[in-house]
Amino acid sequence: MFKLYYAPGTCALASHIALEEAGAPYTTERLDFKSNQQSSPEYLKLNPKGRVPTLVTDHGILTETPAMLAFIAQSFPKAKLAPLEDSFAFAQVQSINSYLCSTVHVAHAHKGRGYRWATEEPSFADMKRKVPETMAACFALIERNMLKGPWVMGEQYTVCDPYLYTIAGWLEGDGVDLAGLPKVADHRKRMSERPAVKKVLAEEKA
Amino acid sequence: MFKLYYAPGTCALASHIALEEAGAPYTTERLDFKSNQQSSPEYLKLNPKGRVPTLVTDHGILTETPAMLAFIAQSFPKAKLAPLEDSFAFAQVQSINSYLCSTVHVAHAHKGRGYRWATEEPSFADMKRKVPETMAACFALIERNMLKGPWVMGEQYTVCDPYLYTIAGWLEGDGVDLAGLPKVADHRKRMSERPAVKKVLAEEKA
Repeated sequence: MFKLYYAPGTCALASHIALEEAGAPYTTERLDFKSNQQSSPEYLKLNPKGRVPTLVTDHGILTETPAMLAFIAQSFPKAKLAPLEDSFAFAQVQSINSYLCSTVHVAHAHKGRGYRWATEEPSFADMKRKVPETMAACFALIERNMLKGPWVMGEQYTVCDPYLYTIAGWLEGDGVDLAGLPKVADHRKRMSERPAVKKVLAEEKA
Repeated sequence: MFKLYYAPGTCALASHIALEEAGAPYTTERLDFKSNQQSSPEYLKLNPKGRVPTLVTDHGILTETPAMLAFIAQSFPKAKLAPLEDSFAFAQVQSINSYLCSTVHVAHAHKGRGYRWATEEPSFADMKRKVPETMAACFALIERNMLKGPWVMGEQYTVCDPYLYTIAGWLEGDGVDLAGLPKVADHRKRMSERPAVKKVLAEEKA
């Protein structure tokens, strides 16, 4: 049994979709970011980083989206959410998820969370102004070099897909025009039509 | 056969050590960051991100340190560089490497690479001033919650160890006092005594 701690609009959506696609037995608990619930003593006991997502498993607690996505794929091999039998293809999945985590998500975070890396208001404003440029550059690289189509890894749907879908969902808010990203736009549309995605979004928006 | 593209003083050191510890057959090619060789057309063909490390394998090209580290561990199972038989323990390895990549390395990068996320000189200075605080917070968490000792995962040396060692090597330059981090300091010392680490450092410094 799994329990996923999430907040709507965050990268936790990727793991939420992956659990659903895997057919995993799981429950969810929504954190209220407005009341700063992620920094409550109770939550910090589970995840001292004070972030989402957190995945409670029968073996212990996991944090960090790329680790959770690979673990979900490995725990439910029949769902074929990663090319587990091919270590190089698995490494490519991991490379994409690592890029999404360490470069693309980080670029996005400079819009609203500049206080993580600076102190002054003008710095926050400067960072925020650059986000359309950095996110456009990241997604130009994704469009050109990473998204094989129809899914990220090609014909096989993997845990890269919910992660890319989650972050691509921030593009309009980040001031990036999807018109120059036809493969990313097509991927988002395909993802939005999947029953697992519809179900998870309905829950997160409820 | 592997070929690792690296530059001294970068996170590529982690993969370099891992290749050596694995007993992998590999060669290296050093990039000259001063002449911006990572942005040359030849290198961008290998790695369109224009960063290091890049690992050329018999199966294709890999980028992103956490993906490369897991792939090296999986490719040389006899070296026991990851708990491959235990998917939850493997996920913990991945969680630590993901944190090092997306949070700790990113915090450090705000010292000298603020131009990635902002445009104005005062913002760069502001970011730089905050690095001792953010890196100290990251390493306080590592000291308290992640480094089991003597190695990151406990008794088993894994690919987390060269990665932590690499980033911990930046602490003095980032203005963090190791006096408050006895486990991290002990880990650095243990690492520096390993023959593989000595060999790799000698090569990178030659």
